Amino acid sequence: MTKRRFSIQHAIFTILFALASVGAPAPYTSASAQTGPADPLPSWNDGAAKRGIIDFVTRVTREGGPDFTPVADRIATLDNDGTLWVEKPLPVEVYFLIARVRELAAKDPSLKERQPFKAAIEGDAAYFHEAGKKAVLDLFVGTETGMDQEQFAAEARRFLEKWRHPKLDRPGAELAYQPMLDLLAYLRRNSFQTWISSGGTIDFLRVFAPQIYGIPIDQIIGTELKRESRMEGGRLVIWRLPAIDTINDKEGKPVGIDRQIGKRPIFVAGNVGNYGDIAMMQYSKGRRGPSFQLLINHDDAAREFAYAEKDNASLNAAKKYGFTVVSIKNDWKTIFGAGQASATK
Amino acid sequence: MTKRRFSIQHAIFTILFALASVGAPAPYTSASAQTGPADPLPSWNDGAAKRGIIDFVTRVTREGGPDFTPVADRIATLDNDGTLWVEKPLPVEVYFLIARVRELAAKDPSLKERQPFKAAIEGDAAYFHEAGKKAVLDLFVGTETGMDQEQFAAEARRFLEKWRHPKLDRPGAELAYQPMLDLLAYLRRNSFQTWISSGGTIDFLRVFAPQIYGIPIDQIIGTELKRESRMEGGRLVIWRLPAIDTINDKEGKPVGIDRQIGKRPIFVAGNVGNYGDIAMMQYSKGRRGPSFQLLINHDDAAREFAYAEKDNASLNAAKKYGFTVVSIKNDWKTIFGAGQASATK
Repeated sequence: MTKRRFSIQHAIFTILFALASVGAPAPYTSASAQTGPADPLPSWNDGAAKRGIIDFVTRVTREGGPDFTPVADRIATLDNDGTLWVEKPLPVEVYFLIARVRELAAKDPSLKERQPFKAAIEGDAAYFHEAGKKAVLDLFVGTETGMDQEQFAAEARRFLEKWRHPKLDRPGAELAYQPMLDLLAYLRRNSFQTWISSGGTIDFLRVFAPQIYGIPIDQIIGTELKRESRMEGGRLVIWRLPAIDTINDKEGKPVGIDRQIGKRPIFVAGNVGNYGDIAMMQYSKGRRGPSFQLLINHDDAAREFAYAEKDNASLNAAKKYGFTVVSIKNDWKTIFGAGQASATK
Repeated sequence: MTKRRFSIQHAIFTILFALASVGAPAPYTSASAQTGPADPLPSWNDGAAKRGIIDFVTRVTREGGPDFTPVADRIATLDNDGTLWVEKPLPVEVYFLIARVRELAAKDPSLKERQPFKAAIEGDAAYFHEAGKKAVLDLFVGTETGMDQEQFAAEARRFLEKWRHPKLDRPGAELAYQPMLDLLAYLRRNSFQTWISSGGTIDFLRVFAPQIYGIPIDQIIGTELKRESRMEGGRLVIWRLPAIDTINDKEGKPVGIDRQIGKRPIFVAGNVGNYGDIAMMQYSKGRRGPSFQLLINHDDAAREFAYAEKDNASLNAAKKYGFTVVSIKNDWKTIFGAGQASATK
């Protein structure tokens, strides 16, 4: 991957996904015993974050206790990019977008002469910085729409089968954070529903979240394209239209949760990086009754990636509202699961 | 309820809900044994419809059989008004709309001088027929928006607690069709997810569907208002904006199913009346693998209400695509549950 191509991807990301936050952990089969003194979060170091999670789950599941919460209200919503899996140097969906442009250009060379595809193929980052959001939207629309939902899922699945992370040299399935897989399993053993609420597009998430996280496709909330019913060859299909319907990021996240779940989440996890999860955490905090908000801070350049927000808005909100901050460096014993490819950065 | 008021409600219904179809049955505790020769659908007469349902469920749940379908794909979507509960003379949500106008006018008499509220209060049906969709939308927006989701739910709950059906003299909870409650229970005993896909608004459905049908609020798809995150008194709430976002009816139903479920339903139920369910049934029919579509025909003026479509579009589609038609008159042994108030029309 050349320097030049990297900067194009970055330009596209900066413009289109400035508002998005996506990330992801692994399948929930790592669950161990539900009873006894077994460590419920084995990939976590002992510390305030781990103790806070366990204390909260214990309180809301203790029958007769003051914070006992019925199963129907044990709703957890978790961001994906940067929370459940790696989002650096760029979210996986951006690599998919670029791969789609190249593939389409291989089939239809005229694309190489048409903007914004030409700029994407040639690595002309300046073009995107100049043409802005419209150009990136055209790119997105030109590569991910104009087909039905089943065709799109097949394309995304084909990409994920062969793609490897450029820095970590591992497939998407191995970008999940083991501590978050532990957390998903722990929550489910305690009868929580574990939903994804991501800035990524719902249709891309649906292709990998069931396998990687054990999250069913009807418990995923994401950014959405406009779609319509259309008859194709006598069969009704859902056609992907060239327009964004809803952006599931920042203030959009509580709205998406209201639309698909209809309840304030009692447990929320998000990350520092793109300001994407503050509103979702405030929404959870506003719940009548107990709630818990987990904010992951990427401070471990040695084992993963270290990044922050210019104004520390997410960390400041954590302080103000009482969200629990996770330091990857201090709180996570391991980052990726054993048995998965070791990091090779 | 005077003749004059009835016609206003009808005018409003005709204009706004021409595209909507809503209806509903009762809680799923009526389930009996899962094994043995017990009748799985006790409120159904023996006939092609009942035998077709049982044959289908048996086939898709028989392990090793050619039509065996994994639990994750056993998705049923059911219309509400006219399918799960009574929708005549008007859908329950229209009575709620009218009640809201009267209540608001009692608090703010100036409403009585402002259109379209004035016309609604005075029973001026001609005004609505003349002013059309815009006036009805203004009425809807003026009574059901401008508050947060929690306030709306409280209003709807308060209405349903005291409202009784004007013809059947029973509360909303007793408008559910017992045969459909039997069906919901039977599907669930066989590990189907039972979703509502209704033309009614999702937020109104959420207030009664869990109690009446045992359907959780995250398995309801309906027409949606635009909403936004807003800080009110330091608390993030979901605010109801004065605009319709999506109409979950006709061709909108497959799109709503794709958005919230992400899979083609294997089992669909809808009804003759407003053409609302044809597209959802075609979508199900287009599934790769087994599927079943149930179309309820309201042909029993003696025990419920008899109505049809001018051009018989739904019945014609049933013939063309092979949907199974239910004759209420012949296929349903009882209409409403025992232990509920008897019909007093």
